[in-house]
Amino acid sequence: MKHQQAMRKPEGNGWRLSKLPIMEIFGPTIQGEGMVIGQKTMFVRTAGCDYSCSWCDSSFTWDGSGKSEIKMMDANEIWAELKSLGGDGFSFVTISGGNPALLGNLNSLVDLLKENNIRICLETQGSKWQDWFIHIDELTISPKPPSSKMITNFSVLDSIINNLKQNDLKQNVSLKVVIFDEIDFEYAKGIYQRYEGVPIYFQVGNEHLTLLDNVELTCILMKKYEWLINKVMEDHDLKNIKVLPQLHTFVWGNKRGV
Amino acid sequence: MKHQQAMRKPEGNGWRLSKLPIMEIFGPTIQGEGMVIGQKTMFVRTAGCDYSCSWCDSSFTWDGSGKSEIKMMDANEIWAELKSLGGDGFSFVTISGGNPALLGNLNSLVDLLKENNIRICLETQGSKWQDWFIHIDELTISPKPPSSKMITNFSVLDSIINNLKQNDLKQNVSLKVVIFDEIDFEYAKGIYQRYEGVPIYFQVGNEHLTLLDNVELTCILMKKYEWLINKVMEDHDLKNIKVLPQLHTFVWGNKRGV
Repeated sequence: MKHQQAMRKPEGNGWRLSKLPIMEIFGPTIQGEGMVIGQKTMFVRTAGCDYSCSWCDSSFTWDGSGKSEIKMMDANEIWAELKSLGGDGFSFVTISGGNPALLGNLNSLVDLLKENNIRICLETQGSKWQDWFIHIDELTISPKPPSSKMITNFSVLDSIINNLKQNDLKQNVSLKVVIFDEIDFEYAKGIYQRYEGVPIYFQVGNEHLTLLDNVELTCILMKKYEWLINKVMEDHDLKNIKVLPQLHTFVWGNKRGV
Repeated sequence: MKHQQAMRKPEGNGWRLSKLPIMEIFGPTIQGEGMVIGQKTMFVRTAGCDYSCSWCDSSFTWDGSGKSEIKMMDANEIWAELKSLGGDGFSFVTISGGNPALLGNLNSLVDLLKENNIRICLETQGSKWQDWFIHIDELTISPKPPSSKMITNFSVLDSIINNLKQNDLKQNVSLKVVIFDEIDFEYAKGIYQRYEGVPIYFQVGNEHLTLLDNVELTCILMKKYEWLINKVMEDHDLKNIKVLPQLHTFVWGNKRGV
Protein backbone atom coordinates (compact mmCIF):
# COMPACT_ATOMS: atom_id res chain seq x y z
CA MET A 1 0.00 0.00 0.00
CA LYS A 2 3.02 2.25 -0.43
CA HIS A 3 1.35 4.31 -3.16
CA GLN A 4 -1.49 5.26 -0.80
CA GLN A 5 0.95 6.77 1.66
CA ALA A 6 2.51 8.70 -1.22
CA MET A 7 -0.90 10.19 -2.08
CA ARG A 8 -0.85 12.67 0.83
CA LYS A 9 -0.14 16.12 -0.60
CA PRO A 10 2.91 17.75 1.02
CA GLU A 11 2.78 21.49 1.77
CA GLY A 12 4.18 24.13 -0.64
CA ASN A 13 7.08 23.13 -2.87
CA GLY A 14 7.21 19.79 -1.18
CA TRP A 15 4.48 18.65 -3.57
CA ARG A 16 7.08 18.08 -6.24
CA LEU A 17 9.00 15.85 -3.86
CA SER A 18 6.05 13.50 -3.37
CA LYS A 19 7.23 10.00 -4.32
CA LEU A 20 5.67 7.81 -7.02
CA PRO A 21 6.23 4.04 -7.42
CA ILE A 22 7.92 3.69 -10.82
CA MET A 23 8.38 0.32 -12.47
CA GLU A 24 10.30 1.43 -15.56
CA ILE A 25 11.11 4.47 -17.68
CA PHE A 26 12.09 3.90 -21.30
CA GLY A 27 12.09 5.34 -24.80
CA PRO A 28 11.96 6.99 -27.15
CA THR A 29 9.91 4.38 -28.95
CA ILE A 30 6.53 4.27 -30.67
CA GLN A 31 3.16 3.89 -29.01
CA GLY A 32 2.04 0.53 -30.40
CA GLU A 33 -1.70 0.72 -29.79
CA GLY A 34 -4.82 2.80 -29.38
CA MET A 35 -5.64 6.42 -30.08
CA VAL A 36 -2.10 7.65 -30.78
CA ILE A 37 -0.78 4.50 -32.43
CA GLY A 38 2.59 5.13 -34.05
CA GLN A 39 3.39 8.22 -31.93
CA LYS A 40 7.02 8.82 -30.96
CA THR A 41 6.91 8.80 -27.17
CA MET A 42 8.75 8.18 -23.92
CA PHE A 43 7.16 5.74 -21.45
CA VAL A 44 6.75 5.96 -17.68
CA ARG A 45 5.30 2.79 -16.18
CA THR A 46 3.93 3.00 -12.64
CA ALA A 47 3.81 0.01 -10.29
CA GLY A 48 0.69 -1.32 -8.62
CA CYS A 49 -2.73 -2.30 -9.91
CA ASP A 50 -6.19 -2.83 -8.44
CA TYR A 51 -6.81 -5.45 -11.15
CA SER A 52 -5.07 -8.75 -11.85
CA CYS A 53 -6.16 -9.55 -15.43
CA SER A 54 -5.58 -13.16 -16.37
CA TRP A 55 -3.73 -12.19 -19.56
CA CYS A 56 -2.02 -8.98 -18.34
CA ASP A 57 1.09 -8.26 -20.44
CA SER A 58 2.60 -6.18 -17.61
CA SER A 59 1.85 -8.42 -14.63
CA PHE A 60 5.34 -7.70 -13.26
CA THR A 61 3.85 -4.34 -12.17
CA TRP A 62 1.55 -6.03 -9.64
CA ASP A 63 2.29 -9.76 -9.13
CA GLY A 64 5.45 -9.28 -7.07
CA SER A 65 7.83 -10.54 -9.78
CA GLY A 66 9.08 -7.01 -10.48
CA LYS A 67 9.09 -5.80 -6.89
CA SER A 68 12.85 -5.34 -6.70
CA GLU A 69 12.76 -3.06 -9.75
CA ILE A 70 10.30 -0.54 -8.31
CA LYS A 71 11.87 2.83 -7.50
CA MET A 72 10.16 5.52 -5.45
CA MET A 73 10.80 8.65 -7.51
CA ASP A 74 9.50 12.22 -7.37
CA ALA A 75 8.45 14.17 -10.47
CA ASN A 76 11.82 15.93 -10.77
CA GLU A 77 13.68 12.63 -10.67
CA ILE A 78 11.37 11.13 -13.31
CA TRP A 79 11.85 14.17 -15.55
CA ALA A 80 15.63 13.95 -15.13
CA GLU A 81 15.54 10.29 -16.16
CA LEU A 82 13.34 11.05 -19.19
CA LYS A 83 15.77 13.79 -20.31
CA SER A 84 18.72 11.51 -19.71
CA LEU A 85 17.21 8.86 -22.02
CA GLY A 86 15.50 11.04 -24.62
CA GLY A 87 17.50 14.28 -24.57
CA ASP A 88 15.68 17.00 -26.50
CA GLY A 89 14.28 14.46 -28.99
CA PHE A 90 10.77 14.03 -27.62
CA SER A 91 7.61 16.04 -26.95
CA PHE A 92 5.30 13.23 -25.85
CA VAL A 93 5.20 11.04 -22.73
CA THR A 94 2.97 8.01 -22.19
CA ILE A 95 2.10 7.08 -18.62
CA SER A 96 1.07 3.46 -18.23
CA GLY A 97 0.91 0.82 -15.54
CA GLY A 98 -0.23 -1.07 -13.64
CA ASN A 99 -2.99 1.42 -13.06
CA PRO A 100 -1.61 4.97 -12.80
CA ALA A 101 -5.07 6.12 -11.64
CA LEU A 102 -4.28 4.65 -8.22
CA LEU A 103 -1.84 7.51 -7.68
CA GLY A 104 -3.55 10.63 -6.38
CA ASN A 105 -0.23 12.47 -6.41
CA LEU A 106 0.53 11.72 -10.07
CA ASN A 107 -0.48 15.31 -10.83
CA SER A 108 2.98 16.30 -9.60
CA LEU A 109 4.36 14.60 -12.72
CA VAL A 110 1.49 15.73 -14.98
CA ASP A 111 2.06 19.37 -13.97
CA LEU A 112 5.81 19.18 -14.48
CA LEU A 113 5.43 17.62 -17.94
CA LYS A 114 2.89 20.29 -18.98
CA GLU A 115 5.27 23.05 -17.81
CA ASN A 116 7.82 21.54 -20.19
CA ASN A 117 5.34 21.54 -23.12
CA ILE A 118 5.07 17.77 -23.17
CA ARG A 119 1.88 16.16 -24.46
CA ILE A 120 0.72 13.37 -22.17
CA CYS A 121 -0.95 10.09 -23.04
CA LEU A 122 -2.33 7.93 -20.23
CA GLU A 123 -4.18 4.64 -20.06
CA THR A 124 -6.30 3.35 -17.19
CA GLN A 125 -9.06 0.77 -16.89
CA GLY A 126 -11.70 3.16 -15.58
CA SER A 127 -11.96 1.71 -12.09
CA LYS A 128 -11.06 4.97 -10.30
CA TRP A 129 -11.39 8.71 -11.00
CA GLN A 130 -8.63 11.26 -10.42
CA ASP A 131 -9.07 15.02 -10.88
CA TRP A 132 -5.82 15.18 -12.86
CA PHE A 133 -7.47 13.09 -15.63
CA ILE A 134 -8.70 16.32 -17.24
CA HIS A 135 -5.11 17.48 -17.81
CA ILE A 136 -4.17 14.39 -19.83
CA ASP A 137 -4.03 15.23 -23.58
CA GLU A 138 -4.78 11.74 -24.85
CA LEU A 139 -6.70 9.69 -22.30
CA THR A 140 -7.59 6.06 -22.94
CA ILE A 141 -10.17 4.37 -20.73
CA SER A 142 -9.78 0.64 -21.17
CA PRO A 143 -12.42 -1.45 -19.35
CA LYS A 144 -11.51 -5.13 -19.15
CA PRO A 145 -13.65 -7.84 -20.80
CA PRO A 146 -14.79 -11.12 -19.17
CA SER A 147 -11.71 -13.11 -20.26
CA SER A 148 -9.66 -10.96 -17.85
CA LYS A 149 -11.68 -12.43 -14.93
CA MET A 150 -12.25 -8.88 -13.69
CA ILE A 151 -15.70 -7.40 -13.06
CA THR A 152 -16.38 -3.93 -14.44
CA ASN A 153 -17.94 -1.53 -11.93
CA PHE A 154 -20.24 0.25 -14.36
CA SER A 155 -21.37 2.92 -11.91
CA VAL A 156 -17.72 4.04 -11.53
CA LEU A 157 -17.11 3.80 -15.27
CA ASP A 158 -20.31 5.76 -16.04
CA SER A 159 -19.27 8.56 -13.69
CA ILE A 160 -15.75 8.73 -15.19
CA ILE A 161 -17.10 9.00 -18.74
CA ASN A 162 -19.65 11.61 -17.62
CA ASN A 163 -16.96 13.67 -15.85
CA LEU A 164 -14.83 13.62 -19.00
CA LYS A 165 -17.76 14.58 -21.22
CA GLN A 166 -18.32 17.69 -19.08
CA ASN A 167 -14.69 18.74 -19.51
CA ASP A 168 -14.40 21.61 -22.01
CA LEU A 169 -10.59 21.51 -22.14
CA LYS A 170 -8.87 20.52 -25.35
CA GLN A 171 -8.54 16.86 -24.48
CA ASN A 172 -8.92 13.69 -26.53
CA VAL A 173 -10.65 10.78 -24.82
CA SER A 174 -11.23 7.29 -26.15
CA LEU A 175 -12.35 3.88 -25.02
CA LYS A 176 -10.33 0.76 -25.80
CA VAL A 177 -11.42 -2.82 -25.29
CA VAL A 178 -9.08 -5.79 -25.72
CA ILE A 179 -10.86 -8.78 -27.25
CA PHE A 180 -9.86 -12.44 -26.96
CA ASP A 181 -13.07 -14.30 -27.80
CA GLU A 182 -16.77 -14.09 -28.69
CA ILE A 183 -17.83 -13.25 -25.12
CA ASP A 184 -15.32 -10.38 -25.00
CA PHE A 185 -16.70 -9.20 -28.33
CA GLU A 186 -20.22 -8.98 -26.93
CA TYR A 187 -18.89 -7.10 -23.87
CA ALA A 188 -17.01 -4.67 -26.17
CA LYS A 189 -20.15 -4.14 -28.22
CA GLY A 190 -22.01 -3.30 -25.01
CA ILE A 191 -19.35 -0.67 -24.19
CA TYR A 192 -19.73 0.79 -27.70
CA GLN A 193 -23.48 1.08 -27.27
CA ARG A 194 -23.42 2.31 -23.65
CA TYR A 195 -21.02 5.19 -24.40
CA GLU A 196 -22.21 6.05 -27.90
CA GLY A 197 -20.28 8.94 -29.41
CA VAL A 198 -17.07 8.32 -27.48
CA PRO A 199 -14.33 7.23 -29.94
CA ILE A 200 -13.70 3.52 -29.43
CA TYR A 201 -10.96 1.04 -30.33
CA PHE A 202 -11.36 -2.73 -30.45
CA GLN A 203 -7.95 -4.34 -29.98
CA VAL A 204 -6.77 -7.89 -30.63
CA GLY A 205 -5.75 -9.67 -27.43
CA ASN A 206 -2.39 -11.43 -27.21
CA GLU A 207 -2.71 -14.71 -25.32
CA HIS A 208 0.77 -15.94 -26.29
CA LEU A 209 2.81 -13.90 -23.82
CA THR A 210 5.62 -16.44 -23.57
CA LEU A 211 6.00 -17.22 -27.29
CA LEU A 212 9.51 -16.22 -28.36
CA ASP A 213 9.27 -16.79 -32.13
CA ASN A 214 8.28 -13.35 -33.48
CA VAL A 215 7.26 -14.61 -36.93
CA GLU A 216 4.99 -17.28 -35.43
CA LEU A 217 3.56 -14.74 -32.98
CA THR A 218 2.91 -12.23 -35.76
CA CYS A 219 1.15 -14.88 -37.89
CA ILE A 220 -1.09 -15.92 -34.99
CA LEU A 221 -1.95 -12.32 -34.07
CA MET A 222 -2.58 -11.38 -37.70
CA LYS A 223 -5.09 -14.22 -38.04
CA LYS A 224 -6.84 -13.05 -34.86
CA TYR A 225 -6.79 -9.48 -36.17
CA GLU A 226 -8.47 -10.63 -39.38
CA TRP A 227 -11.07 -12.54 -37.29
CA LEU A 228 -11.81 -9.39 -35.29
CA ILE A 229 -11.99 -7.21 -38.41
CA ASN A 230 -14.47 -9.62 -39.97
CA LYS A 231 -16.63 -9.66 -36.82
CA VAL A 232 -16.83 -5.86 -36.83
CA MET A 233 -17.42 -5.60 -40.58
CA GLU A 234 -20.34 -8.02 -40.43
CA ASP A 235 -21.98 -6.25 -37.49
CA HIS A 236 -24.26 -3.44 -38.64
CA ASP A 237 -24.62 -2.07 -35.09
CA LEU A 238 -20.90 -1.22 -35.07
CA LYS A 239 -20.35 1.76 -37.34
CA ASN A 240 -17.96 4.43 -36.07
CA ILE A 241 -15.21 2.23 -34.68
CA LYS A 242 -11.52 1.48 -35.11
CA VAL A 243 -10.06 -2.04 -35.03
CA LEU A 244 -6.34 -2.29 -34.28
CA PRO A 245 -3.62 -4.76 -33.35
CA GLN A 246 -0.66 -4.05 -31.04
CA LEU A 247 2.02 -2.90 -33.49
CA HIS A 248 4.89 -3.23 -31.02
CA THR A 249 4.15 -6.95 -30.69
CA PHE A 250 4.61 -7.39 -34.46
CA VAL A 251 7.94 -5.58 -34.38
CA TRP A 252 9.43 -6.65 -31.06
CA GLY A 253 7.38 -9.69 -30.01
CA ASN A 254 6.91 -10.06 -26.26
CA LYS A 255 10.08 -8.13 -25.40
CA ARG A 256 9.88 -5.62 -22.55
CA GLY A 257 11.13 -2.03 -22.54
CA VAL A 258 10.54 -1.22 -26.21
CA MET B 1 -9.60 13.94 -70.23
CA LYS B 2 -13.09 12.67 -69.50
CA HIS B 3 -13.01 13.94 -65.91
CA GLN B 4 -12.38 17.50 -67.11
CA GLN B 5 -15.57 17.43 -69.14
CA ALA B 6 -17.40 16.18 -66.08
CA MET B 7 -16.15 19.14 -64.05
CA ARG B 8 -18.61 21.58 -65.64
CA LYS B 9 -21.35 22.28 -63.13
CA PRO B 10 -24.82 21.49 -64.51
CA GLU B 11 -27.69 23.84 -63.63
CA GLY B 12 -30.05 23.21 -60.67
CA ASN B 13 -30.65 19.62 -59.62
CA GLY B 14 -28.58 18.44 -62.52
CA TRP B 15 -25.53 18.96 -60.32
CA ARG B 16 -26.23 15.65 -58.66
CA LEU B 17 -26.24 13.99 -62.07
CA SER B 18 -22.71 15.13 -62.86
CA LYS B 19 -20.65 12.02 -63.66
CA LEU B 20 -17.50 10.96 -61.83
CA PRO B 21 -14.95 8.39 -63.12
CA ILE B 22 -15.08 5.57 -60.56
CA MET B 23 -12.51 2.78 -60.53
CA GLU B 24 -13.96 0.69 -57.70
CA ILE B 25 -16.32 0.83 -54.73
CA PHE B 26 -15.79 -1.68 -51.92
CA GLY B 27 -16.20 -2.33 -48.22
CA PRO B 28 -16.88 -2.30 -45.43
CA THR B 29 -13.26 -2.87 -44.48
CA ILE B 30 -10.70 -1.10 -42.32
CA GLN B 31 -8.59 1.89 -43.28
CA GLY B 32 -5.10 0.41 -43.18
CA GLU B 33 -3.00 3.55 -42.91
CA GLY B 34 -2.65 7.14 -41.81
CA MET B 35 -4.71 9.39 -39.57
CA VAL B 36 -7.73 7.10 -39.15
CA ILE B 37 -5.88 3.79 -39.21
CA GLY B 38 -8.18 0.94 -38.17
CA GLN B 39 -11.42 2.83 -38.97
CA LYS B 40 -14.36 0.82 -40.32
CA THR B 41 -15.02 2.42 -43.68
CA MET B 42 -16.36 2.03 -47.20
CA PHE B 43 -14.02 2.93 -50.07
CA VAL B 44 -14.68 4.88 -53.27
CA ARG B 45 -11.68 4.90 -55.62
CA THR B 46 -11.67 7.46 -58.40
CA ALA B 47 -9.83 6.92 -61.68
CA GLY B 48 -7.18 9.22 -63.10
CA CYS B 49 -4.04 10.75 -61.67
CA ASP B 50 -1.73 13.65 -62.51
CA TYR B 51 1.16 11.64 -61.04
CA SER B 52 2.67 8.31 -62.08
CA CYS B 53 4.65 7.28 -59.00
CA SER B 54 7.20 4.56 -59.73
CA TRP B 55 5.91 2.40 -56.85
CA CYS B 56 2.18 3.30 -56.98
CA ASP B 57 0.10 0.49 -55.45
CA SER B 58 -2.97 1.61 -57.42
CA SER B 59 -1.41 2.19 -60.84
CA PHE B 60 -4.44 0.52 -62.45
CA THR B 61 -6.21 3.84 -61.78
CA TRP B 62 -4.01 5.70 -64.27
CA ASP B 63 -1.80 3.38 -66.39
CA GLY B 64 -4.56 2.10 -68.65
CA SER B 65 -4.59 -1.43 -67.20
CA GLY B 66 -7.88 -0.81 -65.39
CA LYS B 67 -9.50 1.25 -68.14
CA SER B 68 -12.28 -1.22 -68.86
CA GLU B 69 -13.33 -1.19 -65.18
CA ILE B 70 -13.92 2.57 -64.97
CA LYS B 71 -17.59 3.49 -64.63
CA MET B 72 -18.94 7.02 -65.06
CA MET B 73 -21.28 7.37 -62.08
CA ASP B 74 -23.15 10.27 -60.51
CA ALA B 75 -23.32 10.84 -56.74
CA ASN B 76 -26.72 9.13 -56.42
CA GLU B 77 -25.46 6.04 -58.22
CA ILE B 78 -22.34 5.91 -56.01
CA TRP B 79 -24.47 6.25 -52.87
CA ALA B 80 -26.77 3.48 -54.08
CA GLU B 81 -23.77 1.19 -54.62
CA LEU B 82 -22.36 2.03 -51.17
CA LYS B 83 -25.73 1.20 -49.55
CA SER B 84 -26.01 -1.98 -51.59
CA LEU B 85 -22.61 -3.18 -50.30
CA GLY B 86 -22.65 -1.81 -46.75
CA GLY B 87 -26.35 -1.56 -45.87
CA ASP B 88 -26.83 0.45 -42.71
CA GLY B 89 -23.56 -0.84 -41.22
CA PHE B 90 -21.30 2.10 -41.94
CA SER B 91 -20.93 5.81 -41.11
CA PHE B 92 -17.58 6.49 -42.75
CA VAL B 93 -16.50 6.68 -46.41
CA THR B 94 -12.92 6.97 -47.66
CA ILE B 95 -12.39 8.57 -51.06
CA SER B 96 -9.11 7.59 -52.65
CA GLY B 97 -7.58 7.38 -56.11
CA GLY B 98 -5.80 8.02 -58.35
CA ASN B 99 -6.02 11.64 -57.32
CA PRO B 100 -9.61 12.59 -56.40
CA ALA B 101 -8.52 16.24 -56.27
CA LEU B 102 -8.58 16.25 -60.07
CA LEU B 103 -12.39 16.15 -59.89
CA GLY B 104 -13.89 19.59 -59.46
CA ASN B 105 -17.36 18.06 -59.35
CA LEU B 106 -16.55 15.63 -56.52
CA ASN B 107 -18.45 17.98 -54.19
CA SER B 108 -21.63 16.40 -55.56
CA LEU B 109 -20.60 13.21 -53.74
CA VAL B 110 -19.19 15.05 -50.71
CA ASP B 111 -22.47 16.96 -50.26
CA LEU B 112 -24.60 13.83 -50.61
CA LEU B 113 -22.50 11.91 -48.07
CA LYS B 114 -22.69 14.80 -45.57
CA GLU B 115 -26.49 14.93 -45.97
CA ASN B 116 -26.50 11.26 -44.96
CA ASN B 117 -24.36 11.95 -41.85
CA ILE B 118 -21.36 10.15 -43.27
CA ARG B 119 -17.88 11.17 -42.14
CA ILE B 120 -15.51 11.48 -45.08
CA CYS B 121 -11.83 10.65 -45.30
CA LEU B 122 -9.89 11.69 -48.40
CA GLU B 123 -6.29 11.41 -49.52
CA THR B 124 -4.55 13.46 -52.18
CA GLN B 125 -0.93 14.28 -52.95
CA GLY B 126 -1.31 18.04 -52.64
CA SER B 127 -0.76 18.89 -56.29
CA LYS B 128 -4.11 20.66 -56.75
CA TRP B 129 -6.57 22.59 -54.55
CA GLN B 130 -10.34 22.10 -54.58
CA ASP B 131 -12.77 24.23 -52.56
CA TRP B 132 -14.56 21.09 -51.37
CA PHE B 133 -11.39 20.10 -49.41
CA ILE B 134 -12.71 22.07 -46.43
CA HIS B 135 -15.76 19.78 -46.17
CA ILE B 136 -13.64 16.62 -45.79
CA ASP B 137 -13.62 15.45 -42.13
CA GLU B 138 -10.28 13.66 -42.25
CA LEU B 139 -8.03 15.04 -44.98
CA THR B 140 -4.62 13.53 -45.70
CA ILE B 141 -2.17 15.47 -47.85
CA SER B 142 0.46 13.03 -49.05
CA PRO B 143 3.34 14.65 -50.98
CA LYS B 144 5.47 12.10 -52.81
CA PRO B 145 9.18 11.62 -52.03
CA PRO B 146 12.04 11.40 -54.58
CA SER B 147 11.79 7.60 -55.02
CA SER B 148 8.41 8.18 -56.70
CA LYS B 149 10.22 10.09 -59.51
CA MET B 150 7.66 12.87 -59.08
CA ILE B 151 8.62 16.50 -58.37
CA THR B 152 6.72 18.28 -55.59
CA ASN B 153 5.42 21.73 -56.55
CA PHE B 154 6.02 23.41 -53.21
CA SER B 155 4.25 26.66 -54.09
CA VAL B 156 1.04 24.66 -54.71
CA LEU B 157 1.58 22.56 -51.58
CA ASP B 158 2.28 25.67 -49.47
CA SER B 159 -0.93 27.32 -50.64
CA ILE B 160 -2.99 24.17 -49.93
CA ILE B 161 -1.63 23.89 -46.38
CA ASN B 162 -2.18 27.64 -45.82
CA ASN B 163 -5.78 27.41 -47.10
CA LEU B 164 -6.46 24.53 -44.73
CA LYS B 165 -4.88 26.33 -41.78
CA GLN B 166 -7.29 29.24 -42.32
CA ASN B 167 -10.27 26.92 -42.22
CA ASP B 168 -12.09 27.20 -38.89
CA LEU B 169 -14.41 24.26 -39.56
CA LYS B 170 -14.11 21.16 -37.44
CA GLN B 171 -11.78 19.32 -39.76
CA ASN B 172 -8.77 17.10 -39.14
CA VAL B 173 -5.84 17.55 -41.51
CA SER B 174 -2.59 15.61 -41.62
CA LEU B 175 0.45 15.11 -43.79
CA LYS B 176 1.64 11.63 -44.74
CA VAL B 177 4.91 10.77 -46.42
CA VAL B 178 5.74 7.29 -47.71
CA ILE B 179 9.41 6.43 -47.20
CA PHE B 180 11.45 3.88 -49.13
CA ASP B 181 15.05 4.97 -48.51
CA GLU B 182 17.41 7.48 -46.89
CA ILE B 183 16.74 10.15 -49.54
CA ASP B 184 12.98 9.84 -48.97
CA PHE B 185 13.62 10.14 -45.25
CA GLU B 186 15.41 13.46 -45.73
CA TYR B 187 12.56 14.68 -47.94
CA ALA B 188 10.01 13.64 -45.29
CA LYS B 189 12.01 15.44 -42.63
CA GLY B 190 11.94 18.56 -44.80
CA ILE B 191 8.12 18.29 -44.99
CA TYR B 192 7.95 17.92 -41.18
CA GLN B 193 10.03 21.06 -40.71
CA ARG B 194 8.35 23.12 -43.46
CA TYR B 195 4.83 22.54 -42.09
CA GLU B 196 5.64 22.46 -38.39
CA GLY B 197 2.55 21.92 -36.25
CA VAL B 198 0.58 19.98 -38.86
CA PRO B 199 0.16 16.36 -37.65
CA ILE B 200 2.44 14.15 -39.72
CA TYR B 201 2.74 10.42 -40.46
CA PHE B 202 5.84 8.70 -41.79
CA GLN B 203 4.78 5.48 -43.54
CA VAL B 204 6.82 2.47 -44.62
CA GLY B 205 6.87 2.06 -48.40
CA ASN B 206 6.00 -1.30 -49.97
CA GLU B 207 8.29 -2.02 -52.92
CA HIS B 208 7.19 -5.65 -53.24
CA LEU B 209 3.89 -5.11 -55.03
CA THR B 210 3.93 -8.45 -56.83
CA LEU B 211 5.02 -10.65 -53.89
CA LEU B 212 2.27 -13.19 -53.23
CA ASP B 213 3.61 -14.83 -50.04
CA ASN B 214 1.95 -12.82 -47.25
CA VAL B 215 4.20 -14.12 -44.48
CA GLU B 216 7.34 -13.23 -46.45
CA LEU B 217 5.86 -9.82 -47.33
CA THR B 218 4.95 -9.14 -43.71
CA CYS B 219 8.46 -10.07 -42.53
CA ILE B 220 10.09 -7.78 -45.09
CA LEU B 221 7.76 -4.86 -44.30
CA MET B 222 8.16 -5.35 -40.54
CA LYS B 223 11.95 -5.11 -40.89
CA LYS B 224 11.54 -1.92 -42.91
CA TYR B 225 9.11 -0.59 -40.32
CA GLU B 226 11.69 -1.23 -37.59
CA TRP B 227 14.33 0.54 -39.71
CA LEU B 228 12.05 3.57 -40.07
CA ILE B 229 11.15 3.61 -36.38
CA ASN B 230 14.85 3.56 -35.46
CA LYS B 231 15.62 6.41 -37.87
CA VAL B 232 12.90 8.55 -36.28
CA MET B 233 13.81 7.64 -32.70
CA GLU B 234 17.47 8.60 -33.24
CA ASP B 235 16.58 11.93 -34.85
CA HIS B 236 16.14 14.66 -32.22
CA ASP B 237 14.66 17.08 -34.78
CA LEU B 238 11.66 14.77 -35.18
CA LYS B 239 9.53 15.00 -32.05
CA ASN B 240 5.77 15.13 -32.58
CA ILE B 241 5.40 12.49 -35.26
CA LYS B 242 3.70 9.16 -35.91
CA VAL B 243 5.40 6.23 -37.69
CA LEU B 244 3.09 3.62 -39.20
CA PRO B 245 3.02 0.66 -41.57
CA GLN B 246 0.15 -0.25 -43.92
CA LEU B 247 -1.91 -2.64 -41.79
CA HIS B 248 -3.99 -3.95 -44.69
CA THR B 249 -0.80 -5.23 -46.35
CA PHE B 250 -0.02 -7.32 -43.26
CA VAL B 251 -3.49 -8.83 -43.25
CA TRP B 252 -4.27 -9.18 -46.94
CA GLY B 253 -0.91 -8.81 -48.70
CA ASN B 254 -1.10 -7.16 -52.12
CA LYS B 255 -4.73 -8.16 -52.73
CA ARG B 256 -7.04 -5.54 -54.24
CA GLY B 257 -10.53 -4.58 -53.03
CA VAL B 258 -10.00 -5.18 -49.30
